[in-house]
Amino acid sequence: MKGSRFPRRMDVKPGMTVNELVKEFGMAGYNGKRLSEAVEIYEKMIDDKDCVKVLTAAGALVAGGMRNVFVSFIRAGLVDVFIATGGSVLTHDIIEALGVHHVQGSSFVDDVKLAEKNVVRLYDVFLDKSGYTKVEDFLVEVMPKMPQKTMSPKEFFFELGKHIKDENSIIKACHDMNVPIFCPSFTDSMTAFHAWVYSQNHDLKVNPQLDIKDIMEIVWQDKTFGALILGGGVPKHFIAGMMQASGKELDYAIQITLDRPEHGGVSGAPLKEAKSWKKVSAKGLVTDVISDVTLAFPIIVAALLDYKANK
Amino acid sequence: MKGSRFPRRMDVKPGMTVNELVKEFGMAGYNGKRLSEAVEIYEKMIDDKDCVKVLTAAGALVAGGMRNVFVSFIRAGLVDVFIATGGSVLTHDIIEALGVHHVQGSSFVDDVKLAEKNVVRLYDVFLDKSGYTKVEDFLVEVMPKMPQKTMSPKEFFFELGKHIKDENSIIKACHDMNVPIFCPSFTDSMTAFHAWVYSQNHDLKVNPQLDIKDIMEIVWQDKTFGALILGGGVPKHFIAGMMQASGKELDYAIQITLDRPEHGGVSGAPLKEAKSWKKVSAKGLVTDVISDVTLAFPIIVAALLDYKANK
Amino acid sequence: MKGSRFPRRMDVKPGMTVNELVKEFGMAGYNGKRLSEAVEIYEKMIDDKDCVKVLTAAGALVAGGMRNVFVSFIRAGLVDVFIATGGSVLTHDIIEALGVHHVQGSSFVDDVKLAEKNVVRLYDVFLDKSGYTKVEDFLVEVMPKMPQKTMSPKEFFFELGKHIKDENSIIKACHDMNVPIFCPSFTDSMTAFHAWVYSQNHDLKVNPQLDIKDIMEIVWQDKTFGALILGGGVPKHFIAGMMQASGKELDYAIQITLDRPEHGGVSGAPLKEAKSWKKVSAKGLVTDVISDVTLAFPIIVAALLDYKANK
Amino acid sequence: MKGSRFPRRMDVKPGMTVNELVKEFGMAGYNGKRLSEAVEIYEKMIDDKDCVKVLTAAGALVAGGMRNVFVSFIRAGLVDVFIATGGSVLTHDIIEALGVHHVQGSSFVDDVKLAEKNVVRLYDVFLDKSGYTKVEDFLVEVMPKMPQKTMSPKEFFFELGKHIKDENSIIKACHDMNVPIFCPSFTDSMTAFHAWVYSQNHDLKVNPQLDIKDIMEIVWQDKTFGALILGGGVPKHFIAGMMQASGKELDYAIQITLDRPEHGGVSGAPLKEAKSWKKVSAKGLVTDVISDVTLAFPIIVAALLDYKANK
Repeated sequence: MKGSRFPRRMDVKPGMTVNELVKEFGMAGYNGKRLSEAVEIYEKMIDDKDCVKVLTAAGALVAGGMRNVFVSFIRAGLVDVFIATGGSVLTHDIIEALGVHHVQGSSFVDDVKLAEKNVVRLYDVFLDKSGYTKVEDFLVEVMPKMPQKTMSPKEFFFELGKHIKDENSIIKACHDMNVPIFCPSFTDSMTAFHAWVYSQNHDLKVNPQLDIKDIMEIVWQDKTFGALILGGGVPKHFIAGMMQASGKELDYAIQITLDRPEHGGVSGAPLKEAKSWKKVSAKGLVTDVISDVTLAFPIIVAALLDYKANK
Repeated sequence: MKGSRFPRRMDVKPGMTVNELVKEFGMAGYNGKRLSEAVEIYEKMIDDKDCVKVLTAAGALVAGGMRNVFVSFIRAGLVDVFIATGGSVLTHDIIEALGVHHVQGSSFVDDVKLAEKNVVRLYDVFLDKSGYTKVEDFLVEVMPKMPQKTMSPKEFFFELGKHIKDENSIIKACHDMNVPIFCPSFTDSMTAFHAWVYSQNHDLKVNPQLDIKDIMEIVWQDKTFGALILGGGVPKHFIAGMMQASGKELDYAIQITLDRPEHGGVSGAPLKEAKSWKKVSAKGLVTDVISDVTLAFPIIVAALLDYKANK
Repeated sequence: MKGSRFPRRMDVKPGMTVNELVKEFGMAGYNGKRLSEAVEIYEKMIDDKDCVKVLTAAGALVAGGMRNVFVSFIRAGLVDVFIATGGSVLTHDIIEALGVHHVQGSSFVDDVKLAEKNVVRLYDVFLDKSGYTKVEDFLVEVMPKMPQKTMSPKEFFFELGKHIKDENSIIKACHDMNVPIFCPSFTDSMTAFHAWVYSQNHDLKVNPQLDIKDIMEIVWQDKTFGALILGGGVPKHFIAGMMQASGKELDYAIQITLDRPEHGGVSGAPLKEAKSWKKVSAKGLVTDVISDVTLAFPIIVAALLDYKANK
Repeated sequence: MKGSRFPRRMDVKPGMTVNELVKEFGMAGYNGKRLSEAVEIYEKMIDDKDCVKVLTAAGALVAGGMRNVFVSFIRAGLVDVFIATGGSVLTHDIIEALGVHHVQGSSFVDDVKLAEKNVVRLYDVFLDKSGYTKVEDFLVEVMPKMPQKTMSPKEFFFELGKHIKDENSIIKACHDMNVPIFCPSFTDSMTAFHAWVYSQNHDLKVNPQLDIKDIMEIVWQDKTFGALILGGGVPKHFIAGMMQASGKELDYAIQITLDRPEHGGVSGAPLKEAKSWKKVSAKGLVTDVISDVTLAFPIIVAALLDYKANK
């Protein structure tokens, strides 16, 4: 994908589709080009019948309005495995499913006054704090109906999916499409806190360590592996680490992040670096899109839905 | 534009147009939302018949493949004033006009080996260094044909536009559409270097200070003013400074940048900050899109071309 | 701390101490000033006898050479609680304790060739991959000597600390100083992977959920709370979340990060935002230092060691 | 400087000097290490008797409290050439020289209210807008006393230096130490605006193009060249461009910036990239410190003052 000459420079025109735009980005440089590479690589993952397509998500993406984009992507059958953080992805999905919505706000506000109004802030998005009480009430109601045993987060979220009515819920969409949800940092979430409280005098216990067993069954298969990594963090590190632990390698990898590489942290580390670790294969196709996920991810999904519809 | 509830969350679908996508971004948070605000604000600038629409450009945008996007935007009549850096915008436009093209390369290369091959690098874009010799040859050829007097950069680039054949040249498009090009940092460019060499024994001299007179004639008009600011830098600072000097204020301002605000530099300073300076009016509509220009700018232009076509 | 006039501007002189430099930074703006605020706030935490001083660490900080800085800080008695990621902080600490050292490398390398030499890369730092085999061997050797029961990561790392000989180990320093180590994302680490393998046919099992109980016992105390947050991530989110869950608030908070705020992610979110959540108290003293941790953290620790020595 | 093993990891101790700290940073990774490389490279520039030491400055550094740091550096004889932006470096220096001081403020403020109070904001620094009136008054007073001819910015600032009384002025320090100040983007500043107004009916005219002649006389010397680049922008691009134009190359280069490289802009472009352009020599010693200038620059100057004092 590199070294080629621009056949021509990118252009735009009235009425063009997102897919046409993405093709044009293929004529640009920098992150425009990379967005087009991201779509190309994911298309190859779709075409590769042996490919396990992993989607990882960290960051306040439900607050950022990405919930339906995730659901459209998952329900289109374009995701095989979902790895997410417990708080800003999964707990916020439950909050929305319970009817408390994230609303557009502003980052230029008096946070102490917001606190007095019971409103919490995620940059320029507001959320009524009652969402957290609803999550507690919901979990207290449904946990007794779930199997009373020690579960992995994967099993826990699958069980939870049975009790969510909202068709636009990520957790429900994963349940319906049989896409496992892994959550290695589960403990760091309000959902986990309520699960822990409940576990004090019940047999339903969650142990994130059990996600290792569940994901190992997937990565030990004779398959190829591809990942679309949103925002880095533990979900990125976990899929990479499970490749390392199992001796497997990602054959395709795409990441979208605004984090920097120069301090060595995992979220901003270019995917090329993962080749030294053999977390990505030597010939693996990779691209790093330096962008806010809320900007690049919907474009990628729109283009891939088009690709699938015209296949 | 703030404080409103999401009417619903953003969604994507197969075959959607860029304009539909931008409307959907209006339902998101963070930079997705801001991209949609950028389009909305520019649409208001188009609808406001009194608005002088200023486009400023800093950064290696021609190398990034944005040349035709600029040209489509300018030729559609959507830009009234263009302020750019002399090097990576204007000199690189001349290089392309002379048939030497920026090509997609890679940032993971041995720069010393590139140097040996006479190839220069701008992140992941390559350029044959012969482009600079062609610029010199071209200027040596056309400067004798230009008026032999002291000119502002604005006059100089207008004269230059007469001698460029390439319809996809930004300089020629500005010439054809009568859009003045200001270049307050002209001296910091190879074009300026060759102009200085020529001026040693000719009467054609360029003085960037004269751009002040030329832009003052524009800003002293009884008009409203709006700016789309790509990448910050001197072009951003200059339009803001000319507002300050003339006692005028921007009524609309949009910026696209990846620079940070926390070190006080102008390129990353949020537009809200410019309200303290009265460079932007107290009620001015502003939005800051944190994004690579190569990603956000083509989307904005595509949506605006659509807006104009359907008006 | 804000609104004050510069008594004078910052100055530097030959032979000045780090502590004198930090005082001078108090006369600067932007992140220079904030570094000085960070030291001032932590000094208040030291002076406040009721304050539980929490240090959180995410990012490849051991690879970045920060290990001894952590150890000096902890052994000086200036840390009460440590929350870290399992991989790049704790597993890398074990690797170093086993004699495999991170070495200065370069980010401009062929990662595939590094992989062939069994060398892994963290930006410009290299590590011999044999470190991971040593970790496995070490764990296989010491886990049978540990209590065969279900433990929290806190208990697990305390037990591990008994078997580490290296005085410069963070885990051993915490053990020796009775500083609990919490690791809510434990599952996402090679240490956790080997613990899981071992747990398949032994009674020693680790459950990260049990860290909730252990940290609750700390936060439910009638104390004040302060946090120095390095790099954000799960450790930051966990201490903030446990405040939220327990109805407590941080009275002091300092963060050092290069992540951006504008996409809503937790790592780059300014601490002021946490006031809307009541994770930080309305009157809580906070500062955000936008810096690579390897640059700002050693300066802060050097200044605080000086403060303690002269108290 | 790369590929070496850590002789040991960095450590800190009470009472250490800034110079000792910098030596310790030499044992770290990432930007800690690079800060130490920056000092090492500048020390070599000092030791190299043939080296022309160029300091470039862009960004709101006077507002950031760096003025005395610049002055100490210049008055110690450690700078041969200074290239700066006209606004936030040079005009702000004049404002301070006229007794209007930048004061510590906050970035969380109502900018419209600030505007009503005649206070302008640069991130978390405030400035009384009367500073600009004082600059106008001062220039109107001193310009008639200056040679009435066309000057380069270099000549203009040297003449201006004669009329500034404040020993802590950067412009005066450069004048006193005979350090030329180049300002290729002069036109983009309030100083330039007033110079242009004055030039309308006087013979004192400034032409930034003439800075090319003045700097060419320096770079055409048979010398080695080294640059410490603060914040990128036009000053960085200009020294690099003048190397390109003259066929010379930087033998040493250090940059401090928070800008990113991935969009191809000059401010964030790693210095290694400049080797493809032969703006930096193939064997040139370079380092990129990813940091706010207000944090890294004072440390570097403090260490270099120490180096000079002990030489």
